[in-house]
Amino acid sequence: MGHPEAAARLEQQFRFLREIDRLKSIERQNILTDASRRENSAEHSWHLAVLALCLAEHADEPGIDLFKVVRMLLIHDIVEIDAGDAFLHDPAALEQQAAKEELAAQRLFGLLPSDQRDEWLALWREFEARRSPESVLAHAFDRVQPALLHEATDGVIWQKYGTTHEQIQSKMLAVREASPTLWERVQVIITRAKAAGRFG
Amino acid sequence: MGHPEAAARLEQQFRFLREIDRLKSIERQNILTDASRRENSAEHSWHLAVLALCLAEHADEPGIDLFKVVRMLLIHDIVEIDAGDAFLHDPAALEQQAAKEELAAQRLFGLLPSDQRDEWLALWREFEARRSPESVLAHAFDRVQPALLHEATDGVIWQKYGTTHEQIQSKMLAVREASPTLWERVQVIITRAKAAGRFG
Repeated sequence: MGHPEAAARLEQQFRFLREIDRLKSIERQNILTDASRRENSAEHSWHLAVLALCLAEHADEPGIDLFKVVRMLLIHDIVEIDAGDAFLHDPAALEQQAAKEELAAQRLFGLLPSDQRDEWLALWREFEARRSPESVLAHAFDRVQPALLHEATDGVIWQKYGTTHEQIQSKMLAVREASPTLWERVQVIITRAKAAGRFG
Repeated sequence: MGHPEAAARLEQQFRFLREIDRLKSIERQNILTDASRRENSAEHSWHLAVLALCLAEHADEPGIDLFKVVRMLLIHDIVEIDAGDAFLHDPAALEQQAAKEELAAQRLFGLLPSDQRDEWLALWREFEARRSPESVLAHAFDRVQPALLHEATDGVIWQKYGTTHEQIQSKMLAVREASPTLWERVQVIITRAKAAGRFG
């Protein structure tokens, strides 16, 4: 027989792991590289975590804790289960989003044993605050991954939603801050989309 | 201007990251907890990585390198892009699968810069070999995640594919080896499914 306390913790962890399965049903605006359907937030989080492993060498800041970046990226979207995926360029939606996400984080991470709840909540809040080097880099990766999908699908989603060049450039400042190399690469994507008339 | 070598590496890395987007279109036998559709291998990999962060404390072996476990789980299914998802209980399919996956790993990780290719190939082969403590634990988690989905969906997928109780127990030896606590929990799921007549 296992330790009763371990078994009790495991029940809470299973409940959490079962609940977050719902992230697979949260649709994002972006589409897959083969344009077959919209991406969901769970597979986005996977893609992003692999991207972080792959592109970490391009970070401007030395001494980054890459495991922390990966942990942040794996959990950063879980709040969308309750709060939904706010469209990044809609200021009205973004205004209320922060408060909704804080409540969502408290409920969802609150399913975990209390020590884990505190740890995961702190990690999610660190990501949101964008002050630590790890959170700055994590946000940059979170901009690069959609850019990669936009490049593969010729920027049609930017066009579909009437995104402006200025909105995109403003979002991409997060990339410039973390990695000049990645920022230059993303500029190639944006310049090409601009020339193709994809921006509103 | 960024370093030319960094830019050249980035092109290879982008090509790899674009290619692996296809993992989002590889369907597994298992279904989501709300039974709405089959799970794909990208979102499975995400769920598994979060599960590893959540359940690592139940590992029997001390001193596990958890970041290595997470890296393994994030990349372990990428080979399915070329090799497909072999049905775990079909011996004929499994026989040829190892060779197909080795070729797939060489092609897919071969898109990366050579130092990364070598590192990621080695990590994937370490996972497959199941000798290191990290790979043993990663395989256990890879059994627990579907069990969690089966519990949520009342074992209907086991029934649908005529899976036998012996086949499942044989697969679950990987869990017993890595964590008695997790193994006991999984036994609850299997016992309940057996009582409900889910096994062939």
